[in-house]
Amino acid sequence: MPRIHRLDAGQVHYEWNNALAPRLEIDPGDTVVFDTRDAADGYYSPASTHADVLARGPFRGHPLTGPVRVRGARPGDVLAVEILEVVPAASFGWTQIRPGRGLLPEAEFPKPFLQLWDLSDGTHARMGRDIAVPIAPFPGVMGTALDAPGGHSTMPPRKNGGNMDIKQLTAGTTLYLPVWVDGALFSVGDAHAAQGDGEVCITAVEMMARATLRFGLEPGRRLAEPQLRTRGPIGAATQGGPCYATTAHGPDLFASAQQAVRYMIDHLVAERGLSREEAYVLASVAVDLKISEIVDAPNWIVSAFLPEAIFV
Amino acid sequence: MPRIHRLDAGQVHYEWNNALAPRLEIDPGDTVVFDTRDAADGYYSPASTHADVLARGPFRGHPLTGPVRVRGARPGDVLAVEILEVVPAASFGWTQIRPGRGLLPEAEFPKPFLQLWDLSDGTHARMGRDIAVPIAPFPGVMGTALDAPGGHSTMPPRKNGGNMDIKQLTAGTTLYLPVWVDGALFSVGDAHAAQGDGEVCITAVEMMARATLRFGLEPGRRLAEPQLRTRGPIGAATQGGPCYATTAHGPDLFASAQQAVRYMIDHLVAERGLSREEAYVLASVAVDLKISEIVDAPNWIVSAFLPEAIFV
Repeated sequence: MPRIHRLDAGQVHYEWNNALAPRLEIDPGDTVVFDTRDAADGYYSPASTHADVLARGPFRGHPLTGPVRVRGARPGDVLAVEILEVVPAASFGWTQIRPGRGLLPEAEFPKPFLQLWDLSDGTHARMGRDIAVPIAPFPGVMGTALDAPGGHSTMPPRKNGGNMDIKQLTAGTTLYLPVWVDGALFSVGDAHAAQGDGEVCITAVEMMARATLRFGLEPGRRLAEPQLRTRGPIGAATQGGPCYATTAHGPDLFASAQQAVRYMIDHLVAERGLSREEAYVLASVAVDLKISEIVDAPNWIVSAFLPEAIFV
Repeated sequence: MPRIHRLDAGQVHYEWNNALAPRLEIDPGDTVVFDTRDAADGYYSPASTHADVLARGPFRGHPLTGPVRVRGARPGDVLAVEILEVVPAASFGWTQIRPGRGLLPEAEFPKPFLQLWDLSDGTHARMGRDIAVPIAPFPGVMGTALDAPGGHSTMPPRKNGGNMDIKQLTAGTTLYLPVWVDGALFSVGDAHAAQGDGEVCITAVEMMARATLRFGLEPGRRLAEPQLRTRGPIGAATQGGPCYATTAHGPDLFASAQQAVRYMIDHLVAERGLSREEAYVLASVAVDLKISEIVDAPNWIVSAFLPEAIFV
């Protein structure tokens, strides 16, 4: 008989390490309701200011809730994580620009910037200026323990999942995570209320959350990297109405992504009256980066799509 | 009074060259109904075979219908191309794998392959195997003449647009093209019945088509590269039901795109019983490449999304 467990955020870990003791042991088929801290570990409040961004000090790692040991899970298996529900556990969210981090270099965004979002209506993240981004919450970090010993930074995603920041991992989606150690040792954190494909300023609408996940086990499926299946069409919740898109061509996808985002920032400043910092933040939260074509040598195209329904 | 013009495909050009004589001169506000040849210039028929792929000889350039001179257009202006309608002008389409072309190297796909599609119901491209990809037609190539003299290959997209292969350029979308020479000198061709973001095997569902475009002029808008606005939410026509997605992480977006597509091909072979060639073709026609995150150094994630509604 599958059980429902609860795991609070009173105790977290800040690195991937397969030597961490499991906080919970479950059977395949069980569900766990996780409370998760935000990426800044509760540092920000609705009273926070731009100056607080640099005062925060170095990033210690995402605070993660877990690990959860899944009985019977073995290397070579796949952990099927069905995302049943993700709900904000705070009435505000935040997005920061920290110079030198994110897609655009410090020379272009030399000053720290903090954007607070009002999440209190439960449906939209509001930054003022008649902008309301539909809330489509998901955990930025979900992962299993790595087989390599010792501590590993939570920042980069790896073959164990981790900080994937894949915005389609909302309720209804099933994430297929490779298992690398006995028991899988799953952890979760870093929830986002909304994010664009790319997460270009390196933060989304960051928030505390509650995530309800059901765990299945697929013995011997052997995935090299995470895969996923959504329940329905993607983007339905966050899009309605026209999209405006910028494009950039060239032989380097990273440089073209930067350039497409620069054009989008210019567009938002010129057409919507945002500051450059607000525009960069909004691009991170609501603009989707697509590889339009990757074959017409020597110039690939990266496109940045802005759903205009966010302007209310 | 805006006029409606027609331009047949009896005469085409195979390179960008601002010395080409305009076939038509119009005023801003006018509409042109273009007939366009397919990318292989009518080479394929419903009786074509895999062997015909290599027999075709070297690529001469996309056959383009135009140029159209827009009165009053000057460098620094933007040509607003409103896509009113794009309809197939043939009952079949084709997708080819030509070894050494496309996202995956010749070593992985050493043999030529031709996939024919039945377009006869007007709503779906059918390849057999109970696969029906919704038709969402758009011109792969739309562009203005370059300011640099001489002939320029039609293969790479550039600041004039050209072979952009942006699948959202369907009816209802307005494309904003920079003008680089007096009169703009617009041409169009290479229609696709369906394509995924990425167009990974370098051909989509290729076809002859009729494209109805209305031309506006925005003096002095000065865009560096093309931009666009859709009429409504994107993907609505081509998606319904779940998506399956593969992911690949790493510091190089191109390599991750290749890897995500390899995983998708493996998935289509294992779960849907396709041959590897059919899977590669289907990825080109129906799978969308997204940059999920481009900030969690050193590993970015490229995701490949397959809409499962195509399996009927």
